[in-house]
Amino acid sequence: MAKIAFVGLGNMGGPMAANLVKAGHDVSVFDLSAAAVGHAVEAGAHSAESSIAAVEGAEYLITMLPAGVHVSSVMVKKDALLDKVSKDCLVIDSSTIDAATAREMAQEASDRGIQFVDAPVSGGVGGAVAGTLAFMVGGSEEAFAKALPVLECMGKNIFHAGDSGAGQVAKACNNMMLAVLMAGTSEALNMGINNGLDPKVLSEIMSKSSGNNWALQVYNPVPGVMEGVPSSNDYQGGFMVDLMCKDLGLAMDNSQASRSPVPMGSAARGVFNLHQAKGNGGLDFSSVFRLFNRED
Amino acid sequence: MAKIAFVGLGNMGGPMAANLVKAGHDVSVFDLSAAAVGHAVEAGAHSAESSIAAVEGAEYLITMLPAGVHVSSVMVKKDALLDKVSKDCLVIDSSTIDAATAREMAQEASDRGIQFVDAPVSGGVGGAVAGTLAFMVGGSEEAFAKALPVLECMGKNIFHAGDSGAGQVAKACNNMMLAVLMAGTSEALNMGINNGLDPKVLSEIMSKSSGNNWALQVYNPVPGVMEGVPSSNDYQGGFMVDLMCKDLGLAMDNSQASRSPVPMGSAARGVFNLHQAKGNGGLDFSSVFRLFNRED
Amino acid sequence: MAKIAFVGLGNMGGPMAANLVKAGHDVSVFDLSAAAVGHAVEAGAHSAESSIAAVEGAEYLITMLPAGVHVSSVMVKKDALLDKVSKDCLVIDSSTIDAATAREMAQEASDRGIQFVDAPVSGGVGGAVAGTLAFMVGGSEEAFAKALPVLECMGKNIFHAGDSGAGQVAKACNNMMLAVLMAGTSEALNMGINNGLDPKVLSEIMSKSSGNNWALQVYNPVPGVMEGVPSSNDYQGGFMVDLMCKDLGLAMDNSQASRSPVPMGSAARGVFNLHQAKGNGGLDFSSVFRLFNRED
Amino acid sequence: MAKIAFVGLGNMGGPMAANLVKAGHDVSVFDLSAAAVGHAVEAGAHSAESSIAAVEGAEYLITMLPAGVHVSSVMVKKDALLDKVSKDCLVIDSSTIDAATAREMAQEASDRGIQFVDAPVSGGVGGAVAGTLAFMVGGSEEAFAKALPVLECMGKNIFHAGDSGAGQVAKACNNMMLAVLMAGTSEALNMGINNGLDPKVLSEIMSKSSGNNWALQVYNPVPGVMEGVPSSNDYQGGFMVDLMCKDLGLAMDNSQASRSPVPMGSAARGVFNLHQAKGNGGLDFSSVFRLFNRED
Repeated sequence: MAKIAFVGLGNMGGPMAANLVKAGHDVSVFDLSAAAVGHAVEAGAHSAESSIAAVEGAEYLITMLPAGVHVSSVMVKKDALLDKVSKDCLVIDSSTIDAATAREMAQEASDRGIQFVDAPVSGGVGGAVAGTLAFMVGGSEEAFAKALPVLECMGKNIFHAGDSGAGQVAKACNNMMLAVLMAGTSEALNMGINNGLDPKVLSEIMSKSSGNNWALQVYNPVPGVMEGVPSSNDYQGGFMVDLMCKDLGLAMDNSQASRSPVPMGSAARGVFNLHQAKGNGGLDFSSVFRLFNRED
Repeated sequence: MAKIAFVGLGNMGGPMAANLVKAGHDVSVFDLSAAAVGHAVEAGAHSAESSIAAVEGAEYLITMLPAGVHVSSVMVKKDALLDKVSKDCLVIDSSTIDAATAREMAQEASDRGIQFVDAPVSGGVGGAVAGTLAFMVGGSEEAFAKALPVLECMGKNIFHAGDSGAGQVAKACNNMMLAVLMAGTSEALNMGINNGLDPKVLSEIMSKSSGNNWALQVYNPVPGVMEGVPSSNDYQGGFMVDLMCKDLGLAMDNSQASRSPVPMGSAARGVFNLHQAKGNGGLDFSSVFRLFNRED
Repeated sequence: MAKIAFVGLGNMGGPMAANLVKAGHDVSVFDLSAAAVGHAVEAGAHSAESSIAAVEGAEYLITMLPAGVHVSSVMVKKDALLDKVSKDCLVIDSSTIDAATAREMAQEASDRGIQFVDAPVSGGVGGAVAGTLAFMVGGSEEAFAKALPVLECMGKNIFHAGDSGAGQVAKACNNMMLAVLMAGTSEALNMGINNGLDPKVLSEIMSKSSGNNWALQVYNPVPGVMEGVPSSNDYQGGFMVDLMCKDLGLAMDNSQASRSPVPMGSAARGVFNLHQAKGNGGLDFSSVFRLFNRED
Repeated sequence: MAKIAFVGLGNMGGPMAANLVKAGHDVSVFDLSAAAVGHAVEAGAHSAESSIAAVEGAEYLITMLPAGVHVSSVMVKKDALLDKVSKDCLVIDSSTIDAATAREMAQEASDRGIQFVDAPVSGGVGGAVAGTLAFMVGGSEEAFAKALPVLECMGKNIFHAGDSGAGQVAKACNNMMLAVLMAGTSEALNMGINNGLDPKVLSEIMSKSSGNNWALQVYNPVPGVMEGVPSSNDYQGGFMVDLMCKDLGLAMDNSQASRSPVPMGSAARGVFNLHQAKGNGGLDFSSVFRLFNRED
């Protein structure tokens, strides 16, 4: 049992903190939303008066925040938690942010003699609740080893991607690829449909051929082809278009900073942004299939 | 045992005909290249003096030709085999051509009371030799049923994609998707490398996450990540860039004819054409990874 | 005064033939539509019973047809006019078709000792009526010189682009560029608007800077910025999205045949096809601006 | 004659400051590079010991810095010049940075009762030396009016784009469009060349047709078509690929922040990044023409 501070109890952070409690840890939580804190307390967490109070005596600090600017504010600016935590506290930032900020935070921590890992997740709210998230972790071998038992309370696949920032890089690469897969699969299936093919048959053929990919395997974007996925539920639930667009922005940031050409990710971003602009930001990202449909 | 005429004995057609012989069929072959005919004869086929002679008494006619214009020439123009075959001969065109020509040929055959299926393959020369090709078949249920035992002598996965032309459509959709997968995977792995990640580790992470796709699973484009693939053999062998560019042209034809928007396939075509223009047409298509590499 | 046969009296061909009459030429016309012929006769042309009758004694044959397949049919297949015209008749094909067919027709003509030029136009129905079309001509110097006085009756800018096919190539390059300009200008102005800028002010700035282009100068896609253009008339009239999509298909054909990478033209084609798919094919092509608008 | 502080004397800032001196202004300069300061002093400027010293008594502060982070540092962090300048000093930031930082700086200035305009330039080093830059200005009418006479000493076209940030937005839109124009023009001319057309003839045709744009008019990317442009000087001088890539990054930032779909700008960015990755960052941006050339 470890003493863990958890800051940021949104759709993802809330159930993650609950899973830590369930695993027997002593969890102090903080969030600006009283309702979010309330849910965590119901789940067995302790409510701290502030983020600073939360980290008192903590062996782990886990943060789950919307963007790099919030992480930076909490770590070294407004809350300055890196100045408040004890030297042997491991800081785990599970927010999805740009790699540059992640590396900067790791350096700030290191300057204070503190260990820090970036550990963004994939798997969505469902994975957060079920404790089956994937974690992509950037940091030293030692820090990774220390983070592992805690992360295993919240997730299933825990990857050590490399040094500081590597977790964020891996997630940016993966989600850019995911956008490419979903947009590409949608347009390919749509072209088949326009030629009179049954999307179920075409999906079956492609998933057994060289066009096989995650979207065809477990997340088919065409309504009615696959059960239990957002496309068969009016594109409700799942991973929102707005979040995919956010992640594609992070991928562009990384492409710019590392001078990496990403014409395919850029094309996918164009497609998702066109879809988002028409008021579809709140739908599951597989709804991009609709962008391709003929309505003439 | 069936009497089969086989026209077109190139890199693919040659070993396909040999597998038919091996399965016990009586195979009459024709090709403009005497050397190609010679190899087939060595394998046990009979050499016919002309394509017209080859189809005499044939229960099946199989064609394997470079483009729609050749299929059209052989079927209804120069050789006019549809006027020469017997009424109960099943015509199987395994060439990869545009769906429009495939449908036209099926109609021409139907006008003469002859059954015709389009049955393009995937699996490359290796699959042709090993008899493990995938066939994507367009035509009636009846014609498909009749083609099946013959196709099984040359392939492993035999898909009935739908009516006439559907085989070509399925192949165009699949190979367009494949181009998207390979270009997208290449640029994602390259961005990871530019950030200091080990491509083996990043490939492992993505293949267990939502970025998973055929290229990551069996055809990694980064030299040294996977054994026995073209990327670890100087991009020799495999599926040539020139052929991928040909298939992307067919995908564009289909997109145009069916008014299907394909921004992702178009972006992939742009990428492969840029790569081809620099003299890489003869390399395996996973060599597109090199296009993204930083050389500054 | 010359004796001119004119085949194909659509929205473009009709007014072009009328301008030839107006210039004093003796014009025999043919079209499958009786109504189209009727209008030409009202304008002073003679109605021929067939295309073959039309070319009898003609010094010039001008064709204005929808696609390469029609030109081929009229020239060497169904009507076989190249076998009917006199040896000193100059054949001018003003249809917008693929360069390959244009070159093939020129060769077929040359085989029969006849001169042929490809001479596609730009300028739309308005230009056809006003006699201010631009002609892009492919063929020998001699043939161009002979065509010039006749083309000047229908157009203002007559360009000699090069040898046979060059007219079609020039038009494909130009219209692909036009699609790039219109899509790019639309998205740039839309981004300005999303940032609170006045599109009139931003258009003014860009048209005096390095972003200047034809769309900003004479065909602004944002409603209300410029008078007398389709964007200020609900995108009625002008150059239809369907026609732009047709021309982008021809550009892709040329890119494929000449192995020329066209990532920008491909991206523009993706954009216009997405717009077309939503039932906008009959609107002016500057309506692509609407694709980018935020509606959330 | 006004008292002007000028901070940032790079390739652009140096000659801009010199032109202010030439116009009779009293200019105090600061830069971290002693050499850069030396050149300005030779031109007649006064060397200040620090940026803080430079702004003492200044009626105008002009900054010309590489990126938003530097502007922010100089204005409100390290140097905190907004706390040092007098209340009636007009601050003009001519750096090309993201609109978000520009708006933030304007707000910081406003909080202190100081007027601030963003005024990025276009026209390159040549324009800076000749005093013919274009300025795109964001800020109030009053601040614009006050800035105008000073900007006119350094430039020719001074545009008032709108409120704070609008100058940066206008520049991002314009330069994104420029990238689209140059990439599109390059690929169109290359396709013409691959078809045997003379690029000079094709450029002439397109510049008189609907494909007309700034690149065709004054900056043709094909060597030998136009005199006095970088393409006819081995792509030396002009506007570097690295700078175009920087500007495209700013355009992506703006697209992300304003949720504006920019598929064409994204495609252009992909093209320029592929070109940059092969070691061409220091060449003029019209060298992107080489990316399309066939070398097979």
